[in-house]
Amino acid sequence: MKPDIILLGHGSGGKLSHQLLDDIIIPALSGVAPEQQNDAAVLPAVDGELAFTTDSYVVDPIFFPGGNIGDLAVNGTVNDLAMAGAVPVAISVGLILEEGLAITELRKVLESMRQAADAAGAKIVTGDTKVVPRGKGDKIFINTAGIGRIPKGRNLSGNAAKPGDKVLINGAIGDHGMAVLASREGLELSSDIETDSAALNDLVETLFAACGSHIHVLRDPTRGGVATTLREIAGQSRVDITLDETALPIHESVRGACAILGLDPLFVANEGKLLAIVAADRAETALQAMRRHPAGGEAAIIGEVSAASSGRVLMRTTIGGLRAIEMLAGEQLPRIC
Amino acid sequence: MKPDIILLGHGSGGKLSHQLLDDIIIPALSGVAPEQQNDAAVLPAVDGELAFTTDSYVVDPIFFPGGNIGDLAVNGTVNDLAMAGAVPVAISVGLILEEGLAITELRKVLESMRQAADAAGAKIVTGDTKVVPRGKGDKIFINTAGIGRIPKGRNLSGNAAKPGDKVLINGAIGDHGMAVLASREGLELSSDIETDSAALNDLVETLFAACGSHIHVLRDPTRGGVATTLREIAGQSRVDITLDETALPIHESVRGACAILGLDPLFVANEGKLLAIVAADRAETALQAMRRHPAGGEAAIIGEVSAASSGRVLMRTTIGGLRAIEMLAGEQLPRIC
Repeated sequence: MKPDIILLGHGSGGKLSHQLLDDIIIPALSGVAPEQQNDAAVLPAVDGELAFTTDSYVVDPIFFPGGNIGDLAVNGTVNDLAMAGAVPVAISVGLILEEGLAITELRKVLESMRQAADAAGAKIVTGDTKVVPRGKGDKIFINTAGIGRIPKGRNLSGNAAKPGDKVLINGAIGDHGMAVLASREGLELSSDIETDSAALNDLVETLFAACGSHIHVLRDPTRGGVATTLREIAGQSRVDITLDETALPIHESVRGACAILGLDPLFVANEGKLLAIVAADRAETALQAMRRHPAGGEAAIIGEVSAASSGRVLMRTTIGGLRAIEMLAGEQLPRIC
Repeated sequence: MKPDIILLGHGSGGKLSHQLLDDIIIPALSGVAPEQQNDAAVLPAVDGELAFTTDSYVVDPIFFPGGNIGDLAVNGTVNDLAMAGAVPVAISVGLILEEGLAITELRKVLESMRQAADAAGAKIVTGDTKVVPRGKGDKIFINTAGIGRIPKGRNLSGNAAKPGDKVLINGAIGDHGMAVLASREGLELSSDIETDSAALNDLVETLFAACGSHIHVLRDPTRGGVATTLREIAGQSRVDITLDETALPIHESVRGACAILGLDPLFVANEGKLLAIVAADRAETALQAMRRHPAGGEAAIIGEVSAASSGRVLMRTTIGGLRAIEMLAGEQLPRIC
């Protein structure tokens, strides 16, 4: 009888490892036949510049409303590629499993990875599985690395924001962080907060079709939220960015939950959002393009690059004042991704 | 004062995260200036097919005679690329740190990564850092993924071994596994067992220069050792492989330690060894090329592809008998890489 939980032996490289790979992991993720399996995947030549990125996922819990660690890991890496203007080509998957993980849970996570990869048009081509003893890990950690192809003429970077540019976001903020937090703490905050985890590469293609090189910066506000991401961009580009508080899309359920817990949604992680910094005269075009896309129905222009400077983020508040947004020192919500 | 251990806040995406990145991780690994840091690294176009691979490292302890988890992680990924005949282009680094890890230990590991990458001519171009609470990880886990360029005409695969081919190895087996085991268990087995962790890409170039397309399979016998790796190749190529026990290079210290512990060195992990399956009439050329290379001084022809079959590995013993080598079911030495 085959074991129904992960054993240390599943990580040994022996028969149990091969069984796990051949019976569960490879059929779920990539379908590569055993005789084709090598230490590295071979990919056809890619025309043009490459984007390369990696992220590890340690989210707790591994299942949460609207998603799990598996689709999160795939979408996150697809999005990091997309933020470089890249079309995803291939994804690698590194699993670190804790002894005792239920095989049924592993299977669910892997199936979500495959579905997310299929939805984004990305292929999972290579992987690795390690097992650590009970108490030396936490169910499952996933690393995904990704290779993307950057079509000619795309030249995005965090240092390319220019005074006058507008700041857009494709929808409401804070959903992912609050969904994970509520799920972890067993809070009955609101039954309708779900992760926004989604691949953004198709939205990025739509934006490029509409605005081309007038898109100066794309970045996804994950850990640290919109505030931290804009601080990074402001610092890299040596500009001030001024946000308009009234323009920020926030779901009522998230606003309420944040108020109860004393959290600022500007710092809460998103996993299906992008910030686009776009030349002012194309901002409206970009906004309409986003709104017509399924991933951008609640898109908004939320601010502008207001001056050359040393990199501040300011907020024009609902009552007309101006306050500075600082990065948090440490931890607001740990293990959110 | 900056903390001297890893805190949960180092993983939050806020100020502490940025400090850790800017002060320690990025200077040690890649030196990319803050204003150039984006979600994905951009690489110049690569001519030809790509190799893509990933591996996570969870070795315990993280420091052991002759190396640590850092150089192991870089060499392992460089070698997986090399086994596809690829020249390393770029490496990504995903760190999962346990709260409480000493910053000095982290720094040592990162410096070893950079040195290993420099030695292999590989660039670390992108990374990610996560922090998990005490007791949810084990000091440090590292994922490395790698992209390589496959020069035209190289076409290696585990399914390409042919009856008559010779099996070569570039040196003695079992050093890595026994070095880690001795270090973990505090065994005073022998003071001179050190890991063989090393990059093999330059040796692979030497082999290609000497034998070109007469090299049919390259694979590094890591987890599961030479026995398991040859079983995989035999299975993929549908051949029998027969080893000559007297020809297997094993250091006396490793042989002694294995005897005491009841381990078979054929199943013990290596991290600086490759198995090359080469056309018979080029085997001697390949052997001489290996022996002239610093990473191949103890190279040997250890067996041959003896027949078309369903994939057995046989051993011609020192007393002239023939025994079958099976894969181990489960764990011989856990967390060896």
